[in-house]
Amino acid sequence: MTDVLESRGLDTAEARFRAAKAASTGLATATTAEKNRALEAIADALLARTAEVIEANRRDLAAADENGLSAGLVDRLTLDERRVAALADAVLAIARLADPVGDVVRGSTLPNGLQLTQVRVPFGVVGAIYEARPNVTVDITAIAIKSGNAVVLRGGTAAQHSNAALVAVVQDALASVGLPADAVQTVDEFGREGATALMRARGLVDLLIPRGSAGLIKTVVEESTVPVIETGAGVVHVFLDESADVDLATSIVLNAKTQRVAVCNAAETLLVHAAAAERLLPPVLGRLREAGVTLHADDRTRAVVPDAVPATDEDWAAEYYSMDLAVAVVDDLDAAMDHIAAWSTHHTESIVTESYRNAERFLAEVDSAVVMVNASTRFTDGGEFGFGAEVGISTQKMHARGPMGLAELTSTKWHVRGTGQTRG
Amino acid sequence: MTDVLESRGLDTAEARFRAAKAASTGLATATTAEKNRALEAIADALLARTAEVIEANRRDLAAADENGLSAGLVDRLTLDERRVAALADAVLAIARLADPVGDVVRGSTLPNGLQLTQVRVPFGVVGAIYEARPNVTVDITAIAIKSGNAVVLRGGTAAQHSNAALVAVVQDALASVGLPADAVQTVDEFGREGATALMRARGLVDLLIPRGSAGLIKTVVEESTVPVIETGAGVVHVFLDESADVDLATSIVLNAKTQRVAVCNAAETLLVHAAAAERLLPPVLGRLREAGVTLHADDRTRAVVPDAVPATDEDWAAEYYSMDLAVAVVDDLDAAMDHIAAWSTHHTESIVTESYRNAERFLAEVDSAVVMVNASTRFTDGGEFGFGAEVGISTQKMHARGPMGLAELTSTKWHVRGTGQTRG
Repeated sequence: MTDVLESRGLDTAEARFRAAKAASTGLATATTAEKNRALEAIADALLARTAEVIEANRRDLAAADENGLSAGLVDRLTLDERRVAALADAVLAIARLADPVGDVVRGSTLPNGLQLTQVRVPFGVVGAIYEARPNVTVDITAIAIKSGNAVVLRGGTAAQHSNAALVAVVQDALASVGLPADAVQTVDEFGREGATALMRARGLVDLLIPRGSAGLIKTVVEESTVPVIETGAGVVHVFLDESADVDLATSIVLNAKTQRVAVCNAAETLLVHAAAAERLLPPVLGRLREAGVTLHADDRTRAVVPDAVPATDEDWAAEYYSMDLAVAVVDDLDAAMDHIAAWSTHHTESIVTESYRNAERFLAEVDSAVVMVNASTRFTDGGEFGFGAEVGISTQKMHARGPMGLAELTSTKWHVRGTGQTRG
Repeated sequence: MTDVLESRGLDTAEARFRAAKAASTGLATATTAEKNRALEAIADALLARTAEVIEANRRDLAAADENGLSAGLVDRLTLDERRVAALADAVLAIARLADPVGDVVRGSTLPNGLQLTQVRVPFGVVGAIYEARPNVTVDITAIAIKSGNAVVLRGGTAAQHSNAALVAVVQDALASVGLPADAVQTVDEFGREGATALMRARGLVDLLIPRGSAGLIKTVVEESTVPVIETGAGVVHVFLDESADVDLATSIVLNAKTQRVAVCNAAETLLVHAAAAERLLPPVLGRLREAGVTLHADDRTRAVVPDAVPATDEDWAAEYYSMDLAVAVVDDLDAAMDHIAAWSTHHTESIVTESYRNAERFLAEVDSAVVMVNASTRFTDGGEFGFGAEVGISTQKMHARGPMGLAELTSTKWHVRGTGQTRG
């Protein structure tokens, strides 16, 4: 792969950004049918060239073994026939989604006759920085192509060979349907310098999406001059209000905490109204313990459930990604919202209540991407929301907030059609 | 002013960001009627306290005189009775605009009965960095209040006393109608450190808008960890296609260049199709010269109009802000779009043509915030677009592109209303 790219003169990160930018017009003006044909060609090529991809993946796995990568990382890094087939399926699913490009967002005719339309257009070149997950390489690429964007990938040196093989498959598939192969680029082999170049490529890259650990996201936010969408971190709260139904409370907390733990929309902290603590804590925490959850509780909780682990400030800030839950008793709705304002990462919070007034206050006043009443926080998800594909879950307020689908990978442009109008 | 603030303990930039953030919930949950009452109180107070504002402004003007500020800057800095009255009028005009907060952007009911609504909400705290323009202090503050946002202002030391007086007026007016005075803050007296603190206040400030010179905007883009919207710079092109009508071409180019020169939507470069150069250049350039425009022309233009100043690459990159125009002859539509791709700041470009096919290609392929056919580029403006107020003109693709009105100062939030749904 490297040799092929170098032979085309793309031997620096910047050369690849420029190649992606030059190719982006071809993708931006491609029809939906052409982009779908490209996605179908990619799916076909992934199946036809599975052996080649797995062979490249073996080289990464051998290096991972030498470098003593954790079992979790190795699992995420590993590709086998089943996983490659699943990637091909995911690409076909994206081909079936509606194309947001060209949608008219709004428009008007001015008093002087000028016709204004605000039209959805691709960003141009989208960058992604992520870690040791070759599936993201295919996933982000397919989403970018469907939304008309070129893409520059930095998937980490740990997955370098896998990513190079996957990008080669994608580039060949693009070329096979007459779209520019250069629209998909990787800068993995440039190591940390490739990542730095990507973060400083304002003017060549229009949008940068970091996916991965809190540390990676923080670095990108601080170092990037390219506009960034912050995704992921979820210190997610469930608040059981005074009037909460015990069965609803139990099933929602259990589902939010245990249905899948290593995900950003899993609950990390349970807050319980003081006037309902005696009534709700024993059944809810009892059920969580049966499910194997370790409780980190404040003093007021431990007054009711004495044998829980004492909680510290670290627990209120923790995104456990595990079968652990922080629990606190709070005086009332205001105290619950104060706790959330202090510790939340503004991802998702849910209230369990029978009070219309408190439900509406919680919805209005909690400053998070998704605010729920009587529902499990696990529903914050592009798939569950009906978007079909998910780029990530934005926890910032600019451009996109909450689950991001194809439309969130587009910008807009104003078309103004006149008949010679000048300004007086 | 400084004493009052210090007595309230807000003696660091960060303390003021925290105060603004704490106050932001009060503004975010205020009704439209409450926000309009605040704006009316601000307009009244500006008129009632005009003498106090002008007195503060005199101190800035005295310092400007000492520091040898240019005549243009001094003019922008100067406040008199008429200008303060105009500020009050502008605030009342913003009170009359529709409030975007609470608008439902989209929504659905999921198969499991969960009700999703995506609702427009204020950002929270908006930051603005600008230079020596006290009118921007009032303008941005009124727009922020109407859109439910707290605001932190950095208007530069040159306008420090004027801004402090204006902010005092605004804070008192907010308090007089029961809204939090802390929702409006200035960090001018902290000098450069105040600006740096504002650019690094991610988590306290949700959005940062630089308004001013290209140098100021570049600094903010490079140094800020707070999400930035890049505004302003406009190397704006008009392309006269082979089929352009000579009268349309003349009036559009004349209007785009000369109707007002020191603005971002004024034309800076004229491109002319080679096959129409003999027909169009003499009348169009003749009319521009009559109007006092200096022409910086390439060799092909000078072959037709020999006495123009030779153009260099600096001319293609120049945002003149003056009665100067760069002129080039290009082979065809593709060459025109190549020139635009190479030199444009992606603000506004216009084609003058009678060809339907070329008009639609230009609209589709030129990658700028506003793309026009047969219209003067001077129409790229929030007022002209019918937005009522203008925060600036975004030349980036993230969040907002083109003229920004009140809606562009909002984010969204998902409300999810359930009846106990859990994920299977």
